Amino acid sequence: MIDPALLPFLDRLADSATEAIMPHFRASGQVDNKATSGFDPVTAGDRAAEAALRRLINETFPAHGIMGEEYGDENLDAEHVWVLDPIDGTRAFISGLPVWGTLIGLLSGGRPALGMMAQPFTGERFSGDGLSARYTGPGGPRALRTRACDGLRNAVLSTTTPALFKGAEREAYLRVEEQVRLVRYGYDCYAYCMVAAGFMDAVIETGLHAYDIVALIPVIEGAGGRVTNWEGGPASAGGRVVAAGDLRLHAEILDAINR
Amino acid sequence: MIDPALLPFLDRLADSATEAIMPHFRASGQVDNKATSGFDPVTAGDRAAEAALRRLINETFPAHGIMGEEYGDENLDAEHVWVLDPIDGTRAFISGLPVWGTLIGLLSGGRPALGMMAQPFTGERFSGDGLSARYTGPGGPRALRTRACDGLRNAVLSTTTPALFKGAEREAYLRVEEQVRLVRYGYDCYAYCMVAAGFMDAVIETGLHAYDIVALIPVIEGAGGRVTNWEGGPASAGGRVVAAGDLRLHAEILDAINR
Repeated sequence: MIDPALLPFLDRLADSATEAIMPHFRASGQVDNKATSGFDPVTAGDRAAEAALRRLINETFPAHGIMGEEYGDENLDAEHVWVLDPIDGTRAFISGLPVWGTLIGLLSGGRPALGMMAQPFTGERFSGDGLSARYTGPGGPRALRTRACDGLRNAVLSTTTPALFKGAEREAYLRVEEQVRLVRYGYDCYAYCMVAAGFMDAVIETGLHAYDIVALIPVIEGAGGRVTNWEGGPASAGGRVVAAGDLRLHAEILDAINR
Repeated sequence: MIDPALLPFLDRLADSATEAIMPHFRASGQVDNKATSGFDPVTAGDRAAEAALRRLINETFPAHGIMGEEYGDENLDAEHVWVLDPIDGTRAFISGLPVWGTLIGLLSGGRPALGMMAQPFTGERFSGDGLSARYTGPGGPRALRTRACDGLRNAVLSTTTPALFKGAEREAYLRVEEQVRLVRYGYDCYAYCMVAAGFMDAVIETGLHAYDIVALIPVIEGAGGRVTNWEGGPASAGGRVVAAGDLRLHAEILDAINR
């Protein structure tokens, strides 16, 4: 059971990340290159925000652990471990697009217990605790509910890019994609939130880190959906993930992937 | 030379479209199916907005012509012809994503003279007259300027989806894509505006209608970029389009496409 005091703390964390990130969004010169080969953009905003989040967590809950993209892990044996990705969707971020987000998740006893996606440019926040989920932003606050979707032929599917999938994974992914009504690429965490809000039906990805997905699990599951790995087990370690708003659709996707 | 009175009229048109569209964004039951095969979503908002835009144009400039997606053409022989797409990016729209836009363009003597992209959910507007371009929205009003990009290896490229391109067109497109630093899919008109704003470098598409592109040409060219068809001629009829923020990059893309 989650301490209710942690819920408003999510908003405090998101406020802190927003303050650190927004001076860098659509500013010039923000692109760095973390990888020695290829293109892996990291921004000054990403680092500043993660530092701010860690400071606030350490001050407020010194016994809690933290897992983050930029500054590594601390105290992972703690009962409560925060899982942070200040800018999920850095490629969208550096391209000026409003479909990245700040991901703040909390593992309790190793299970995703609380999560928020905050999009500072649009002013949207999607949060959940696995039992319920809510939206704040333009249009006013409301409960998030996934929509019914009785099968792939009626589904709107999203993935970051089909280029994620290679070899057998690509074949498995395409067995799903070729059956859906509509597929959309390029939205990272924003796509999961559209599943939680009932505007899309599923997201399939591979190669995720824990910090890409932990925050989103309590949002989608709190809105009525399901998030697992491709084998149907826990998705909280990242890797290959299927998220769906309707449990029937989730089962159909697992069937198609594992055929 | 464009009558300066037409500039504030663009905002009046965008206001009118916004009012008609926004009750339908993220509302349920908004999907219709225009095509007899495949999936071609059209929304009630699209139709209501085009009707409102036509009414305002007919009342204010009865001598002007109008070309629109939903209600066809009127008076195309006029010196001034408005080219309208109330919801460019209907697939993003029905998926709840904030990367669609209202496109309002004006042809003067057959040439794109004035254009605006309005994104009502984020409150952004990108407008231009071919000589200058400006942004209003979060962060405050400012001039739009494309950024320098000295070649494909440093370019951020976007297209709606690589599935647009078939056969020889696909080969031509991939000759460009394989050279760029980063490619992003799925943003429709929003990608062109990111080129105008200097956050992305190029957009390549095929199968466009005039109403998909006319409004965007004066914005990108007003910001310092260039928009042509794949042969380097006028893009105002739609079809196969290359938009780039840096003229050197535009030339390099045409070379690669036509190799």
